[in-house]
Amino acid sequence: MPGNTFGTLFRITTWGESHGKGVGVVIDGCPPRMPLTEKMIQSMLDRRRPGKFPASTTRMEPDQAMILSGVFEGMTTGTPIMIMVKNKDAKSGAYSPYASLYRPGHGDFSYVAKYGIRDWRGGGRASARETVARVAAGAVAGAILENHGISVIAYTLELGGIRAETTDLALINQNMFMCPDRKAAEKMVLHVEKIKQQGDSLGGVVEIVASGVPSGLGNPVFDKLDAELAKAVMSIGAVKGVEIGAGFQAARMLGSQNNDPIVPDGFLSNNAGGVLAGISNGDKIVVRAAVKPIPSIAIEQKTINTERKPETICVKGRHDISAIPRINVVCEAMVSLVLADQLLQQKAIEKS
Amino acid sequence: MPGNTFGTLFRITTWGESHGKGVGVVIDGCPPRMPLTEKMIQSMLDRRRPGKFPASTTRMEPDQAMILSGVFEGMTTGTPIMIMVKNKDAKSGAYSPYASLYRPGHGDFSYVAKYGIRDWRGGGRASARETVARVAAGAVAGAILENHGISVIAYTLELGGIRAETTDLALINQNMFMCPDRKAAEKMVLHVEKIKQQGDSLGGVVEIVASGVPSGLGNPVFDKLDAELAKAVMSIGAVKGVEIGAGFQAARMLGSQNNDPIVPDGFLSNNAGGVLAGISNGDKIVVRAAVKPIPSIAIEQKTINTERKPETICVKGRHDISAIPRINVVCEAMVSLVLADQLLQQKAIEKS
Amino acid sequence: MPGNTFGTLFRITTWGESHGKGVGVVIDGCPPRMPLTEKMIQSMLDRRRPGKFPASTTRMEPDQAMILSGVFEGMTTGTPIMIMVKNKDAKSGAYSPYASLYRPGHGDFSYVAKYGIRDWRGGGRASARETVARVAAGAVAGAILENHGISVIAYTLELGGIRAETTDLALINQNMFMCPDRKAAEKMVLHVEKIKQQGDSLGGVVEIVASGVPSGLGNPVFDKLDAELAKAVMSIGAVKGVEIGAGFQAARMLGSQNNDPIVPDGFLSNNAGGVLAGISNGDKIVVRAAVKPIPSIAIEQKTINTERKPETICVKGRHDISAIPRINVVCEAMVSLVLADQLLQQKAIEKS
Amino acid sequence: MPGNTFGTLFRITTWGESHGKGVGVVIDGCPPRMPLTEKMIQSMLDRRRPGKFPASTTRMEPDQAMILSGVFEGMTTGTPIMIMVKNKDAKSGAYSPYASLYRPGHGDFSYVAKYGIRDWRGGGRASARETVARVAAGAVAGAILENHGISVIAYTLELGGIRAETTDLALINQNMFMCPDRKAAEKMVLHVEKIKQQGDSLGGVVEIVASGVPSGLGNPVFDKLDAELAKAVMSIGAVKGVEIGAGFQAARMLGSQNNDPIVPDGFLSNNAGGVLAGISNGDKIVVRAAVKPIPSIAIEQKTINTERKPETICVKGRHDISAIPRINVVCEAMVSLVLADQLLQQKAIEKS
Repeated sequence: MPGNTFGTLFRITTWGESHGKGVGVVIDGCPPRMPLTEKMIQSMLDRRRPGKFPASTTRMEPDQAMILSGVFEGMTTGTPIMIMVKNKDAKSGAYSPYASLYRPGHGDFSYVAKYGIRDWRGGGRASARETVARVAAGAVAGAILENHGISVIAYTLELGGIRAETTDLALINQNMFMCPDRKAAEKMVLHVEKIKQQGDSLGGVVEIVASGVPSGLGNPVFDKLDAELAKAVMSIGAVKGVEIGAGFQAARMLGSQNNDPIVPDGFLSNNAGGVLAGISNGDKIVVRAAVKPIPSIAIEQKTINTERKPETICVKGRHDISAIPRINVVCEAMVSLVLADQLLQQKAIEKS
Repeated sequence: MPGNTFGTLFRITTWGESHGKGVGVVIDGCPPRMPLTEKMIQSMLDRRRPGKFPASTTRMEPDQAMILSGVFEGMTTGTPIMIMVKNKDAKSGAYSPYASLYRPGHGDFSYVAKYGIRDWRGGGRASARETVARVAAGAVAGAILENHGISVIAYTLELGGIRAETTDLALINQNMFMCPDRKAAEKMVLHVEKIKQQGDSLGGVVEIVASGVPSGLGNPVFDKLDAELAKAVMSIGAVKGVEIGAGFQAARMLGSQNNDPIVPDGFLSNNAGGVLAGISNGDKIVVRAAVKPIPSIAIEQKTINTERKPETICVKGRHDISAIPRINVVCEAMVSLVLADQLLQQKAIEKS
Repeated sequence: MPGNTFGTLFRITTWGESHGKGVGVVIDGCPPRMPLTEKMIQSMLDRRRPGKFPASTTRMEPDQAMILSGVFEGMTTGTPIMIMVKNKDAKSGAYSPYASLYRPGHGDFSYVAKYGIRDWRGGGRASARETVARVAAGAVAGAILENHGISVIAYTLELGGIRAETTDLALINQNMFMCPDRKAAEKMVLHVEKIKQQGDSLGGVVEIVASGVPSGLGNPVFDKLDAELAKAVMSIGAVKGVEIGAGFQAARMLGSQNNDPIVPDGFLSNNAGGVLAGISNGDKIVVRAAVKPIPSIAIEQKTINTERKPETICVKGRHDISAIPRINVVCEAMVSLVLADQLLQQKAIEKS
Repeated sequence: MPGNTFGTLFRITTWGESHGKGVGVVIDGCPPRMPLTEKMIQSMLDRRRPGKFPASTTRMEPDQAMILSGVFEGMTTGTPIMIMVKNKDAKSGAYSPYASLYRPGHGDFSYVAKYGIRDWRGGGRASARETVARVAAGAVAGAILENHGISVIAYTLELGGIRAETTDLALINQNMFMCPDRKAAEKMVLHVEKIKQQGDSLGGVVEIVASGVPSGLGNPVFDKLDAELAKAVMSIGAVKGVEIGAGFQAARMLGSQNNDPIVPDGFLSNNAGGVLAGISNGDKIVVRAAVKPIPSIAIEQKTINTERKPETICVKGRHDISAIPRINVVCEAMVSLVLADQLLQQKAIEKS
């Protein structure tokens, strides 16, 4: 597969480069007769906008969502929904010094290895700008989930090694880093400021929780629900690790500790993260994503140019210090896309 | 998708239950004119056989691979290769006490939630026996990779919290746990013995390394090489987490630490785990899998029966203490399947 | 795609060569809790057996269906159903004279062009024996359809230029050629006998009718119901043309003749063949397949050998004179497979 | 699958309604480093423009192709190519009388059956306007084929029962109907004029020929080259039948007539239409499509309204009399899309 399509029955195809004319997504398989407006998509897109957070770039990206097909008189028709966001603030000139250099930690080198050509303006297709399309599609998936009583929320569990000790979801929208722990959030502010002055960048861990997921979603063997979630979340550029439930901690537990005891009302613990043998068990789905530090740093690094000669590089410009918290809504979108697709798939085999 | 097919151009479909008549795999898309014998498959299957390791069940599973199609006079023909392994030692009676109980940590509960029915004999389709088919297919994928100078190896990085400090690959086949650290391996033996006597079980971490992978494999956006690897490895029943390169550790690094400097000969470090922007960069591919403890334990646990009434359960029988090290070859197979498929996909877009 | 998988939610993968160890099919996505026995499959397989018809080979092909997975205590479990039929009467020696020749009208030449190798024993994968697996899967699809009140029937509309003028379905099982017109059937007997003595072979037209299909099945644009049916039927080796409803005759009608007037009870005619804009309209689905004459004939033909030198060939052996009527049940199976898949797909988008 | 995606390695996804904001296509998997301009796409789009032919509507559809992604400095980059055409002349008011009526021969009835809702403006997604996206994609596929020495041409074999007796390809662009027979073309002009005055419409047969196709393209069993072509062509709204090579005529031939004799230079005849056992044999690929008459006619017809009450309808407006010849380039595009995809697939299994 060429790589830009995701999902089976609820299926999206994205397109667009960082400094091209725009980015967008075609959503195919959205159930018909569902209210859908540009406003619903816009409110999710606004959550990934830069400029609101100290860790974020100061570039203006208004990201106006336009629905170009698939909606008639405010309702989905069952036909492809095309959502487009024009690129506005696209100063590709700022990237021209890097046209002949491979930036460490970026896809410059590997894209040339694959395609023998690259659109060097701002990372081209490998830019985080690509996630605009994921989030727009995630808003539509979220609307389907909401109709089925399912909600998905992502928050910052860890940033630059500072970990939330509490999970007070009410706090998420009250601090800069979408962190569910007030004290941790305060430490994060100070730490980010310090690293920013060093010209360096930070990584962290995002936790995504889906509530209200019915038992029975997912497929056996290769297309397990957790396998689909792992692919979905790992497909986000900055993610280098994915866990379900107890995750890597499960590797250090005894069976008697890790097994979730079953009682008539459900499970007494949730080390499984809501997934048993690849199929949802009715408990909360819990996923964690390891997010690497932003590779664009204002510190000199060794690299090579397109002639394979050694060079040094120091990436200046308006870059985020961390993909967190802007990446959180992208994680939320990817989990929503998987769940919406699985929901439709499960309907197909249920007794009618 | 119903879940039992994996891959695009090199594509496998598996079938079979733990206590049915057999398990098998149809491999579609194997390049033609490649030597293939039952012996080549058998030698990989033998590596997942129980009975060799203290952590393993004492059941006899001879697992004789039979090639039923797709090979003519010792050569692949390009048509589907069906490999079947008959089930021999299938005492389903041993499982009948659990026919009306949902075993904690197993798929019993979620399979019934999905399908409204389950084959309770030994876990049915959700049994680890299903991985026989993955390993048989992995042997064929491995043969393709070998023709391209690629090798894949999996070993035990951690078992029951004991972690290998060295990575001496020569040691892997010299100890019970396929551990590349002699001292750690010795500690593992003692620890496993102790846990065994408690009737409990252990988890661990498997590391899989692919060497010789050319740069340029993988696809952008959703079908990134690391996303495919994450799905492949997470689809193994016992796996609850997957990392690429520095993985979760990358979340705690600074950008200046995590970025791999580029020099004319390649990269000075490999925090990326051989994948940049979803495409291989020519360095070693490094994947880690978190393996949960075997859920079948001889310790009493709370559960419910199929009438949703509370019960207790204590799973006796010849069960492994840990999925490690038998799961290692399964991890190796899944990584091989991804790489073989990506190799064929990349040939399609290269200049002829 | 490597070519041996068909369907999306109800998905089959077939394997096996004419003179290998057997042929079979993995059915993935069959709804759970459906009664399924080997007998149900056998009765459909028996309808493609040779030896019953004057146009057919006298080879014995008992074709015993064995279900090796996916069924527990007589019910489908939702997991892959593997059905295997062993090859018994496999005298590959009879084909050895053709090992170095490309038989005209067969796949010998094109398989070598594609794969650089071929299993020359009886056509290998390109043999009509491959259709055993389609028919076995079609029996399972048929059982799903029956549960939804849908029936599919195929009959001989034309053989060797002799066309049925009536469509009395009661007659189909009362004559050698499954022809719904007694007089035409009688003429066919005489004509087949004459052509047989000439060592030549015949083609014909099969009509397939599906009744009870609800309106709303199919998908817009590329995956139209008629497009899926066309692919399904054209994928049968001997088929060179496919029509829906009025088909090629529609090309000669005026719009006022071809349009089916709509009344409250349905449609006054069925030139559409039950499909409008790619979606079923509730009327009967009518498909016709053009079947070419069997290419193996006992008449000398020009060909080349594997060294590209000119030769002549005269194919002797126990070959059918016509793929009809044995192919009829294969056509029925392919239409059933499409409809079962579409039925499941449609459930996914319906309001729950 | 939701239906709006076509192809495996060269894969397109289309979107857009007749009277929405535009129509477009995302092309994923186009090989990199290929020159591509809007002009190349425009020249193919111009061939489906109305207004040039007596059989065509007089509506203005300028159909300006805009490339919004995937091309950098005039070269493809390997990432998704989004091509959009804005809708300009969209007087949806002209369709409002039909908002509550199901037009015979159109998808109005079946779309409501499927989705419970329809965009009634000009047929919405079921409009022939959707084919703009196919043709744009076909232009890109055609550029790939050209690089491999393959050309695809479509012409009018039959219109309103008048059949071309000669196949002089030089004539195609010299007459109104793209007919390779001057005399037949003249008769067509008179016949179309007559039918136009009656307010009725006409069907016909399009023949598509691909030259220069290497042997070895296609896949066995279900994804045969002719099966893919049948699906591709049948997926065009107005097509009701598809033939390969001798097609339905093969059903009336003897084996000795239909088999194409093989000589060292190739085949002495081409009843196979260039495809043997689903794989190209190096000869010309010949496909024919049966095109039904345009269903919108200015003659009163019986129908029902959305309340299922009987009505009569008489469709006025600027409609084509026949989908031919504007559909020809759509047929050409669909055949090109199949061949480009198969070409890439074949590269994947060839020895590197």
